[in-house]
Amino acid sequence: MEHRTISSAVIRRLPRYYRYLGELRESGVKRISSRELSERMKVTASQIRQDLNNFGGFGQQGYGYNVDTLFHEIAAILGIDHEHNVIIIGAGNLGQALVNSGDFAKRGFNIIAIFDNNAELAGKKVGNIKISMISQMADFIKKNNVDIVAITVPRQAANEVAKIAIDAGARGIWNFAHTDISVPEDVVVENVHLSESIMRLSYKLKEKK
Amino acid sequence: MEHRTISSAVIRRLPRYYRYLGELRESGVKRISSRELSERMKVTASQIRQDLNNFGGFGQQGYGYNVDTLFHEIAAILGIDHEHNVIIIGAGNLGQALVNSGDFAKRGFNIIAIFDNNAELAGKKVGNIKISMISQMADFIKKNNVDIVAITVPRQAANEVAKIAIDAGARGIWNFAHTDISVPEDVVVENVHLSESIMRLSYKLKEKK
Repeated sequence: MEHRTISSAVIRRLPRYYRYLGELRESGVKRISSRELSERMKVTASQIRQDLNNFGGFGQQGYGYNVDTLFHEIAAILGIDHEHNVIIIGAGNLGQALVNSGDFAKRGFNIIAIFDNNAELAGKKVGNIKISMISQMADFIKKNNVDIVAITVPRQAANEVAKIAIDAGARGIWNFAHTDISVPEDVVVENVHLSESIMRLSYKLKEKK
Repeated sequence: MEHRTISSAVIRRLPRYYRYLGELRESGVKRISSRELSERMKVTASQIRQDLNNFGGFGQQGYGYNVDTLFHEIAAILGIDHEHNVIIIGAGNLGQALVNSGDFAKRGFNIIAIFDNNAELAGKKVGNIKISMISQMADFIKKNNVDIVAITVPRQAANEVAKIAIDAGARGIWNFAHTDISVPEDVVVENVHLSESIMRLSYKLKEKK
C-alpha cells in the first residue's frame, strides 16, 4: 500500500471500524454495504465512505466492502498486523486489570511482565504473570523486545519510571498516570487520563440539562 | 456567564487546563501569562489565548490570567463546580481501581456505591465501600440522586446493566466495556475503550518508525 497521510480524526475512528468489522467476521459476514455498516455503527453512510476512501476505497458499487480485506487493511494501518510485547509498571488494581483483560492479547498486545517497587509483591502472581521489581525492568526491556510500556504508578513516580523504560529502549508509552510524561523525539505517548474523561462526561451532562 | 457554544476540541482540552491551573493554585501562584502557561503545557501561547478567549478572555495585557478566577471558570464550564454522585457497576479490578483512586473525590465525583452480580462478593469491601448486588441498584439510584454510572462489567452484560441504571434515572454513563451502549436522547455516554487507546498507540509507533 502506498503511504498516504490520514487525518488524526480518521485515525481516532479506525479502531471502532476495526471492532465492528471483527464482530462481522466472527459472525461469518463476508461483505457489507456502507448503508448497512452505517446502521450498525450509527454514523452516516457518507462518513463511512469518506473515512474508508482514505486508504484505497475498497467499496464497490452494488457489492459493498469485503469485510475480511477491510479488516486486515485497517489492522495494517494501525500496526496491529504483527504482535507487540507490552509490560506494565505498577501492580495496583489498574495494572492488574490490564493484565487480567483478555482483550489485549486477542489483538496481538502480549502483556509479558508486570513491575512494581513494593518488595512485598515480588514473585506474587497477577493472572499468570509473576510480579517483578522495577530494578529488574531495564534489563528485561533490553532482552525482550518490549514495544509498549503501560504506566499505572502514582503520578509522582510516573516520569521517573518512564525514563528508565525509555533509556532501556522502550518507544511507546501508554500513560495512565494523571500527569504529562516528558519523552524524547523518537518516543510516542498515548494518555488515558480517567479524571479528564469523567470531567468531559460532567460537561456533557451539564449541556444536556 | 452568558452561554456560548464552545467547540468540542476546546472542551477536550479544558480538563488539561484545569489540571495545570489546579497545580499552579496549589503552589500559590496567583497569576500567569499565556507565555508561561504555554511553556509549562507545551502548547503555543496563541493556542492558549484562543482557547481561553472562548469563555470570556480574562487575560489582560501585562498582567496575564488570574489563576484562581480561570480555575473556577473552567470548573463551572465543565460542571464540576458542584458535586456528583457516582456508582460503579462491576467489582472487578477495574471497578476496584476506580473506587480506590483518590483523584475523583478530589474533583467532586463521589463514588458512593459499587455493585456486582456475584453473590460471593456481597458485603465485601472495596476501600470503604461495601459491595452491593445489582438487584439493589435501581432502588439505590432512585434514592441517592446518582448522576454518573461507571460500567466496568464484561461487554456482554454492559447494555443490560446500563438499561437498569437509566430506567432508574441515571443520566450519565461512563462506559469502560468494549461495546457501544444504546441510550435514549436525554442520556449521555463517555467511553473509555482501552483497546482502542492501545491501537492508537500502536499506530503512532508505526508512524514514528
